[in-house]
Amino acid sequence: MSTAFDLIAQHAKTTWALAQVMGRLGWDQETTMPRGAASQRAEEMAALEGVLHARRTDPRLGDWLEAAVAPDAAGEALLRHVRRSYARNTRVPAALAAELARTTSMAQGIWAEARARDEVAHFLPVLTRVIALRREEGEAIAQGGTAYDALLADYEPGTTGDEIGAMFDRMRPRLVALRERVLGAARQPAPLRGEFNHDGQMRLARKLAETFGYDFARGRLDLAVHPFSSGSGADVRITTRVAETDPFNCFYSTIHEVGHACYEQGIDAAYAFTPLGEGVSMGVHESQSRIYENQLGRSRAFTGWMFEAMRHEFGDLGLPDADAFHAAVNRVQPGYIRTEADEVHYNLHVMMRFDLERALIAGDLAVTDLEAAWNDRFKADFGVAVDRPSHGMLQDVHWSVGLIGYFPTYSLGNVYAGCLMKALRADRPTLDDDLAKGNLEPATGWLRDRLQRHGGLREPRDTIEHACGFAPDETPLLDYLEEKFAALYDL
Amino acid sequence: MSTAFDLIAQHAKTTWALAQVMGRLGWDQETTMPRGAASQRAEEMAALEGVLHARRTDPRLGDWLEAAVAPDAAGEALLRHVRRSYARNTRVPAALAAELARTTSMAQGIWAEARARDEVAHFLPVLTRVIALRREEGEAIAQGGTAYDALLADYEPGTTGDEIGAMFDRMRPRLVALRERVLGAARQPAPLRGEFNHDGQMRLARKLAETFGYDFARGRLDLAVHPFSSGSGADVRITTRVAETDPFNCFYSTIHEVGHACYEQGIDAAYAFTPLGEGVSMGVHESQSRIYENQLGRSRAFTGWMFEAMRHEFGDLGLPDADAFHAAVNRVQPGYIRTEADEVHYNLHVMMRFDLERALIAGDLAVTDLEAAWNDRFKADFGVAVDRPSHGMLQDVHWSVGLIGYFPTYSLGNVYAGCLMKALRADRPTLDDDLAKGNLEPATGWLRDRLQRHGGLREPRDTIEHACGFAPDETPLLDYLEEKFAALYDL
Repeated sequence: MSTAFDLIAQHAKTTWALAQVMGRLGWDQETTMPRGAASQRAEEMAALEGVLHARRTDPRLGDWLEAAVAPDAAGEALLRHVRRSYARNTRVPAALAAELARTTSMAQGIWAEARARDEVAHFLPVLTRVIALRREEGEAIAQGGTAYDALLADYEPGTTGDEIGAMFDRMRPRLVALRERVLGAARQPAPLRGEFNHDGQMRLARKLAETFGYDFARGRLDLAVHPFSSGSGADVRITTRVAETDPFNCFYSTIHEVGHACYEQGIDAAYAFTPLGEGVSMGVHESQSRIYENQLGRSRAFTGWMFEAMRHEFGDLGLPDADAFHAAVNRVQPGYIRTEADEVHYNLHVMMRFDLERALIAGDLAVTDLEAAWNDRFKADFGVAVDRPSHGMLQDVHWSVGLIGYFPTYSLGNVYAGCLMKALRADRPTLDDDLAKGNLEPATGWLRDRLQRHGGLREPRDTIEHACGFAPDETPLLDYLEEKFAALYDL
Repeated sequence: MSTAFDLIAQHAKTTWALAQVMGRLGWDQETTMPRGAASQRAEEMAALEGVLHARRTDPRLGDWLEAAVAPDAAGEALLRHVRRSYARNTRVPAALAAELARTTSMAQGIWAEARARDEVAHFLPVLTRVIALRREEGEAIAQGGTAYDALLADYEPGTTGDEIGAMFDRMRPRLVALRERVLGAARQPAPLRGEFNHDGQMRLARKLAETFGYDFARGRLDLAVHPFSSGSGADVRITTRVAETDPFNCFYSTIHEVGHACYEQGIDAAYAFTPLGEGVSMGVHESQSRIYENQLGRSRAFTGWMFEAMRHEFGDLGLPDADAFHAAVNRVQPGYIRTEADEVHYNLHVMMRFDLERALIAGDLAVTDLEAAWNDRFKADFGVAVDRPSHGMLQDVHWSVGLIGYFPTYSLGNVYAGCLMKALRADRPTLDDDLAKGNLEPATGWLRDRLQRHGGLREPRDTIEHACGFAPDETPLLDYLEEKFAALYDL
């Protein structure tokens, strides 16, 4: 006779496996699917989503959850994940869920048209509808709390908009000040110039993935328009892109996705087929991609190794030495686009979106006033005026597909990465020597042991605190940025 | 208020979409999946199979089927497919289905070991179990009919073992006689020799696929160890393989899979997301792959075009002219292996397996006597003794995975292809002129219009009869083979 806990675990196993299948369909869609298959694929994914939704709201889960007793800490975590998912999904009326799916599916196409035409007005009616529906959904889930916090919990459980807002308010002045000092500095590093052939970039991307510990026996590297990582357990795939004049885009996209993928690959195999067998939140996930990409990948020590690796692959790079290469890798440049932003600008982009989307959901900002609010804020934080909507509020896909509460996890990831790097440096005094030799294992092994292998065992913030040995806050990240760019720009 | 018919159609749509997802997982497994993901993928597929099985035996289907009234002929066909699937799946006890899945999954590995070691005894216990379980399943489905016919109906509904057996008995003497005359002929054509580079083979394979009408906007060509075609509707993918010393293997594998794929791609789009939206049976499917590969692809007319295409890609082929090339393409050689057999030998391989598996299921042949029975029959039909089990009864994967009733559909496909070619030639008197120019559209357009577009509208045999205008039998195939090889071997 199975216990209620066993029944939940068995149910979760099948759900987890089917969710992996859904992830695989998404990967296929972005990498290998024939272009003519798009609408058939949409039906296939809708059918599978229906199966998953039915499982997540299976009334038997409600009964079992009332009776279940966890045998251990991992069992308690499993029940916490299942309970949260069950509560969240059963609180949303089916008609609202269906309307949201229909509206966001349509909204994405309208957003793409609006961005192509640089025409905000084309997007506003459907965005208004998306915001209203997501607010309604948030309120249904929140049951008295704020709608925004309920939406945020889909991506980063255990935190609130108020907490994040307070932290971002502390970060913003220091970042704005740093940005101004860097852009006004007398020393401005030269960029990398030239053409770097496709095959050479892919060879080095593959080598970088291996160097950072990505296991190709349980993954693969393909091309995609927008690089992403996909899957959990024994099948975690990454993608990158290649522009012949911008090899850093390929290399740092690869390292970023490798960070995501190594988190998934590093989780204890005993957690596979349970809700613990995947990254615990978007913020913690982003901490791994960011520390791999930035704190490690863009460090002076590692770029020294990379300078030689690139010269070996491509010959002379037109840069005199490893210091100049490091400066080129970390060159700060003003720009409108979040996804192209450097370490100094990136969080300013995110904070802006967080404040705006929170105001939209709270009803403090009307969708019709969004463009003006965006442009005012951009001028204040970045010092320049937005020249066109595709460089402004139309640049990101997120809101059109209903991803609200997602943006802040990007900066939360950076903050967490700052904390992890501080703790890692304290534990590994010879880290730079290893990085300079292209030996990432002391860093990635530490991350695997302290964080990655635990998967969803602890709540996100506890996951970071457990890894670092201290409660995370924004200070290590800001200290790191100020120190790094003061040295690079001779501030 | 939805009618019972509407409810069935809606239910079938979701099932069809999920079945496509299962097909896509299979494709991924054979082409792109990381090697370390195999056991996770097995769990994913088992989870999805569970979903599909629950849908196919959904008790609501039983109620709806009792009340449903079809609005038209396509609706009647839909009900026929759903009724057959529901009856078949509900008649098999869940415990038996689970035991079969477990046993065949294990048996495949044991078979692979036995084949690698050339050790029949290693395979016999599990094969005994597979045969017993499939017999039990066949009896459960048949409800009084013969178990073999019930199993056969999974692949080729509407025919019986007796019918196929009688036809094969008529074919066998003529094929054995033809084989002896060809191998004893004074004129023996020279084979193609040399090395043909990988990229050139893939370029020409792609060109052949396009020439035969494969739509790359709704498909793609990849490499696989054993070539296959996969998917229906707007996403039908093919695979091929490349051996540098055997380019015909790549080219004719490609054309064969293109035949399967063009059938799926050619089905009326209105049938997508219904059981009519896929090839109606294995035999009819094989008729398309075989007529593309053999009657069209290995014809004197088309090989003339192909001779020039290969010379263009690879330079001199070491063969004096298109006649010699045609003879090399169609070279008849004795051999142990079904999948490598030429048109003269192929059906002899299949008939042997059909007789043996039918006797196994009927209980007229014990598994322990199978090897002796195989070897006796091989000597009788092929004139040589089997030299080792991996060249004999261990060569095919089918029985290990429980595919019993599948083999005869290969030869049924050849018989159907013979009929279709006879009708096509009668309707298209200038066919050879078109083939000689590499213009396949008069042939493939005829097949699309007469057969492919109708998908599952008619039963398999009716599908062929509708296309040909006459009831199919083996005579056209045998006439075609005798005429073709008499000319090639100067008999």
